[in-house]
Amino acid sequence: MQDFQLTILGNGAAVPTAFQNPTSQLLQYNSHRFLIDCGEGTQIQMIKYRKSARKLTRIFISHLHGDHYFGLAGLISTLHLYGRRQPLHLYAPAPLKELLDLQFKLSDTHLMFDLVFHGLPESGLIYEDKKITIETFPLKHRIETHGFVFREKPHQRKLLKDFVNTWHPGIAEMHQIKTGADYVNSEGVLMKNSDITLDAPSVRSFAYCSDTAYDERIIPFVRGVDLLYHEASFDDAFADLAGEKFHSTARQAAMIAQKAGVGKLLLGHFSARYEDPSHLLTEAREEFENSLLSHQGETYDI
Amino acid sequence: MQDFQLTILGNGAAVPTAFQNPTSQLLQYNSHRFLIDCGEGTQIQMIKYRKSARKLTRIFISHLHGDHYFGLAGLISTLHLYGRRQPLHLYAPAPLKELLDLQFKLSDTHLMFDLVFHGLPESGLIYEDKKITIETFPLKHRIETHGFVFREKPHQRKLLKDFVNTWHPGIAEMHQIKTGADYVNSEGVLMKNSDITLDAPSVRSFAYCSDTAYDERIIPFVRGVDLLYHEASFDDAFADLAGEKFHSTARQAAMIAQKAGVGKLLLGHFSARYEDPSHLLTEAREEFENSLLSHQGETYDI
Repeated sequence: MQDFQLTILGNGAAVPTAFQNPTSQLLQYNSHRFLIDCGEGTQIQMIKYRKSARKLTRIFISHLHGDHYFGLAGLISTLHLYGRRQPLHLYAPAPLKELLDLQFKLSDTHLMFDLVFHGLPESGLIYEDKKITIETFPLKHRIETHGFVFREKPHQRKLLKDFVNTWHPGIAEMHQIKTGADYVNSEGVLMKNSDITLDAPSVRSFAYCSDTAYDERIIPFVRGVDLLYHEASFDDAFADLAGEKFHSTARQAAMIAQKAGVGKLLLGHFSARYEDPSHLLTEAREEFENSLLSHQGETYDI
Repeated sequence: MQDFQLTILGNGAAVPTAFQNPTSQLLQYNSHRFLIDCGEGTQIQMIKYRKSARKLTRIFISHLHGDHYFGLAGLISTLHLYGRRQPLHLYAPAPLKELLDLQFKLSDTHLMFDLVFHGLPESGLIYEDKKITIETFPLKHRIETHGFVFREKPHQRKLLKDFVNTWHPGIAEMHQIKTGADYVNSEGVLMKNSDITLDAPSVRSFAYCSDTAYDERIIPFVRGVDLLYHEASFDDAFADLAGEKFHSTARQAAMIAQKAGVGKLLLGHFSARYEDPSHLLTEAREEFENSLLSHQGETYDI
């Protein structure tokens, strides 16, 4: 099975503290290295947690509040100085391109690699290859903000080794069997698919929702994902402030998780006022038992 | 005597490493808190070294290479979120204003305080109050780049306590004596100034030169300063590369220090290739004995 892992590089809110960096996370899937948001200091967090920035393939920026992208120009500059040659794909709200172009113009920087900019649509498929799809969907925040969901495509059934070694099916036949076909062997006997294959591994998925107010319109986009990262800026006591600022409480994040039937909920984007956010977890678990607090530097299997 | 101290927040070159942040330093003079350059992560370095960003009064940006200013928008955003109300003065190459305006427009941020932007002239006085002057001068780099020199104004002579207690001069007379006047006491006797005063404390000064190629045109601007911070990106072995990239070697920094007759030379902006830059100090001291390597988090009295 392919690696599918999320590493939290920063899980703080807008004001950095001694113990919290602004938002960024690294999603590894097979050879993909997806960076989701890139707050100030992300490249330094990557050094700290021994994640190579050189290997990044695609970067996704949810919105243009600084705590989600102020580390991007520095990261791109560093990749340029490292001598990167392979293209880097950037998915972000369209106006970011103007800003990056201006920054590189002012520093007279001419990138040595293609920075391929993809302005984000309001929702829909933004990337697809043989194994994975990536979709974006709208969040409810003060400015244009995007969620992302990363899904494995359905796997094929696995052929039993004994079957292959005994009956030596051809390549075309094996492809058909993997998609569910039965098989007639060289003795004319029908072998049922379920007797000659194993079930495909289940597909895995990860959804990212930060920053957002409580919004049930998110649910259909994240329904059933194995892991949901949802912002949880505030505790119950600050529910009103959360609403005013278009952020969520931990309890609200858990209500989304519960209603969407996700596997696990990972909480983050904690307000700087919580040196210890453990009571946010208590509040979340009253709504959705399988809630976790994210920790910087930790890696979560999906 | 007023405090006059420099704290190094970051002394690395363009590529950050596990042990070096990009350029920033805090200059404290009396109640002034001057920030000189503001590479990515500067606000986090300030937290780490327990220097309050809230107290910053004026910020000086030498040039628009990212390692000297990519932390600025984040720092300003944080001050906004802290609820700052007092104005903040920013001295920088003029195009930075357009960039900051665009960043705050995209995030729909309306600063709660006046960010007073001062586009830098090529050279000359940029700030003055009763006690200090700040001048800028051109450095030799790939884009418009500014050095800064911070100088105390001449102090007045100090009255001897015995003299004041014995002869009770008036306030106007005391002011005259402090500027060098003699005094005729109530018995008609002339008292020479040198007998009734102490010499004024000598004035102190600090100059900042980063980034720059070796350029003797700098010398008149920094002549005789007590402390000169001069970039020293490379060692002798990379002198050609230093020239190509409009940076300096440690030896070249020391030659400027020696020819300008400064008190001490503080070396910084070390290339990421030197995990231990101590041989840069050896090379510098062959030209100018009173050279020091800067260390992040250390404070230097001026």
